[in-house]
Amino acid sequence: MKVLVINCGSSSLKYQLFDIADENVLAKGLVERIGSDASQLTHQPKGKGKYVRETAIGEHQAAIKMVMDLLTDAQYGVLTDIREIEAVGHRVAHGGNVFSRSALIDDEVKQGIRKLAELAPLHNPPNLLGIEAAEKILPGVPQVAVFDTAFHQTIEPEAYMYSLPYELYEKYAIRKYGFHGTSHKFVAQRAAELMGKELSQIKVITCHLGNGASVTAIDGGVSKDTSMGFTPLEGLTMGTRCGDLDPAIVPFLMEKEGLDTTGISTLLNKKSGVLGLSGVSSDFRDIEQAASRGNERAQLAIDVFVHDVKKYIGAYAAILNGIDALVFTAGLGENSPEVRDAVCIDMDYLGIGLDKEKNGIRGKEMEVSAADSTVRVFVIPTNEELMIARDTKRLGLDT
Amino acid sequence: MKVLVINCGSSSLKYQLFDIADENVLAKGLVERIGSDASQLTHQPKGKGKYVRETAIGEHQAAIKMVMDLLTDAQYGVLTDIREIEAVGHRVAHGGNVFSRSALIDDEVKQGIRKLAELAPLHNPPNLLGIEAAEKILPGVPQVAVFDTAFHQTIEPEAYMYSLPYELYEKYAIRKYGFHGTSHKFVAQRAAELMGKELSQIKVITCHLGNGASVTAIDGGVSKDTSMGFTPLEGLTMGTRCGDLDPAIVPFLMEKEGLDTTGISTLLNKKSGVLGLSGVSSDFRDIEQAASRGNERAQLAIDVFVHDVKKYIGAYAAILNGIDALVFTAGLGENSPEVRDAVCIDMDYLGIGLDKEKNGIRGKEMEVSAADSTVRVFVIPTNEELMIARDTKRLGLDT
Repeated sequence: MKVLVINCGSSSLKYQLFDIADENVLAKGLVERIGSDASQLTHQPKGKGKYVRETAIGEHQAAIKMVMDLLTDAQYGVLTDIREIEAVGHRVAHGGNVFSRSALIDDEVKQGIRKLAELAPLHNPPNLLGIEAAEKILPGVPQVAVFDTAFHQTIEPEAYMYSLPYELYEKYAIRKYGFHGTSHKFVAQRAAELMGKELSQIKVITCHLGNGASVTAIDGGVSKDTSMGFTPLEGLTMGTRCGDLDPAIVPFLMEKEGLDTTGISTLLNKKSGVLGLSGVSSDFRDIEQAASRGNERAQLAIDVFVHDVKKYIGAYAAILNGIDALVFTAGLGENSPEVRDAVCIDMDYLGIGLDKEKNGIRGKEMEVSAADSTVRVFVIPTNEELMIARDTKRLGLDT
Repeated sequence: MKVLVINCGSSSLKYQLFDIADENVLAKGLVERIGSDASQLTHQPKGKGKYVRETAIGEHQAAIKMVMDLLTDAQYGVLTDIREIEAVGHRVAHGGNVFSRSALIDDEVKQGIRKLAELAPLHNPPNLLGIEAAEKILPGVPQVAVFDTAFHQTIEPEAYMYSLPYELYEKYAIRKYGFHGTSHKFVAQRAAELMGKELSQIKVITCHLGNGASVTAIDGGVSKDTSMGFTPLEGLTMGTRCGDLDPAIVPFLMEKEGLDTTGISTLLNKKSGVLGLSGVSSDFRDIEQAASRGNERAQLAIDVFVHDVKKYIGAYAAILNGIDALVFTAGLGENSPEVRDAVCIDMDYLGIGLDKEKNGIRGKEMEVSAADSTVRVFVIPTNEELMIARDTKRLGLDT
């Protein structure tokens, strides 16, 4: 029983092929920088050598086709025939108030995802591209959408309502939805396991810090608040997204710069964040390098990001009345000891203390808190793919 | 040496007449609901009876004229001649990066305040109306502008920079400014006095909760972060202002509702906040009454507001690495035991505990923390007028 999991970002495609019977990963890989001249495909079949290729990959369908070819490749493949794939699971960013759980994909579901694209302009469209490309290449195979928003549907009205005229909530369902739900849920569950406790017994703040980034307050396994909002634009400073902003800046900039609603959306979603602040890159690795060479705006971008993360940890500690655990995950959370250190420094008021040496690790599961830290701090690589594969099996194969 | 202090809000005018030699208040008063049919003037001369009048007051100049007449009134006045007023101090909301301290008003200063009106559309225009009305009624008398933004000029770049393209900061000075600075500074100083400590030794979070509302993190007397931003729209839910919002909501609503930049600004500044959520009123007293009678949307508005305040206290506790004191001030902060109680409940992780009985007070200076609360919690009526009077004397009379 093979299940392929696809996670299409705006310029990336991650995939994992599971033998879902035993949750074994048969192959996984990543296509980066889709749409550039320096796209890179990294494919890792289980028990075989890694395949890396740099080439120009124009769009997502071409990327999926390359992945399919590799999965059945004589040397690097793990399948004899592409038809061995029995179901495909897709990560979908925004489920709005339409999708409060995972869904078996049909025309109506696709239409729903398409409609919700205005709420997640960087995400739902590539998600849909991935779905449509997979449908073409694997016709008749069940496809399942797993929504990033579903985990946060437990958030209470005092946290999800914006202070706008109430009619606008009724008319357009404008409220906080939150994202990265699959990831926050996974790492919170894993933290509980590592602590030898039930998730229902602990209070955790999870920091999903990647190119997109969010922080979630989780009480007994239930999402109580999260930093992303109506769309994935709100909250922390991100790769190219502005995060929190005085809302008055939006009409102000539109006037001053002569921008229409599309123009301002592009500016806030694609030209802001650490890219806009630093002028260097949207990739935190580039920014950390530039900062270490003395680039002041790169250092400013890091400082602003760290300040944001600290504020959200503090805010959610207040919502939870203290915490038992703090978790770092996703690209930056897993791989930047510097950011983790900067976030956790001078946080002893909350009982947070890092073990400097343990915190040196990158990309591995590890408790990094000091022995006397009353809050246990973990680095936990996220595994959204496994969670998506499980839902895909349940909805696509078991029913 | 008589100094008149004027604080013009969008629909209100507060005034105090000081004998600045001994900082005595000779008279003070408030005109509320300017522009409505039920305006109310309350005038309290020192050592005389209170004068209250309900009438329709159309605009600010008429309000100031009524105040001047009362100050020289045979029965309720405290002056023989209006010309005894030697200087007038004005609270001005937004000093941008133009005014980093108080200023003696001339045409250039007025022009500066006028220019900055686009950053504070609810505030700078009525401030300017107050200045111009006072100039007409008291020609030749020195007038001083005291800016709400000045105290926050110590905030560091990681806290004041938005994650926008850096060029926009250079071009338009888009950054966090913060407001209510005079109030935050005053109550922090007073909290230190009540604790018998130097302000330089303590970490305080001050909550100015009125029709406009903000929270400030103060370390050793220095503002480190504050919840209002580029304009007074950011931060907490307010009377009619939305506070924090996913910035993507702004272009989304403009599209959906067919609003231009003026239309969306009006919606966010004047039709949102607890008014928009509750549909009842922008006045928290009305909303608390409605909620106590079972109005669910009024209760929702209170819950959202309290959630906001809790989050900012938590966020700033993280920025300050714990706090020594928490201060409530301004209309709601001074007069709503219910809001203070709701904000402080389940905050023992931070060492906050209220004394339920002491917290019952309204409008009086009082320590309201429980005996075992490691954070000392105070209700401190703010006195922006006195601070403005001091600056007015210094700039208008001493030089």
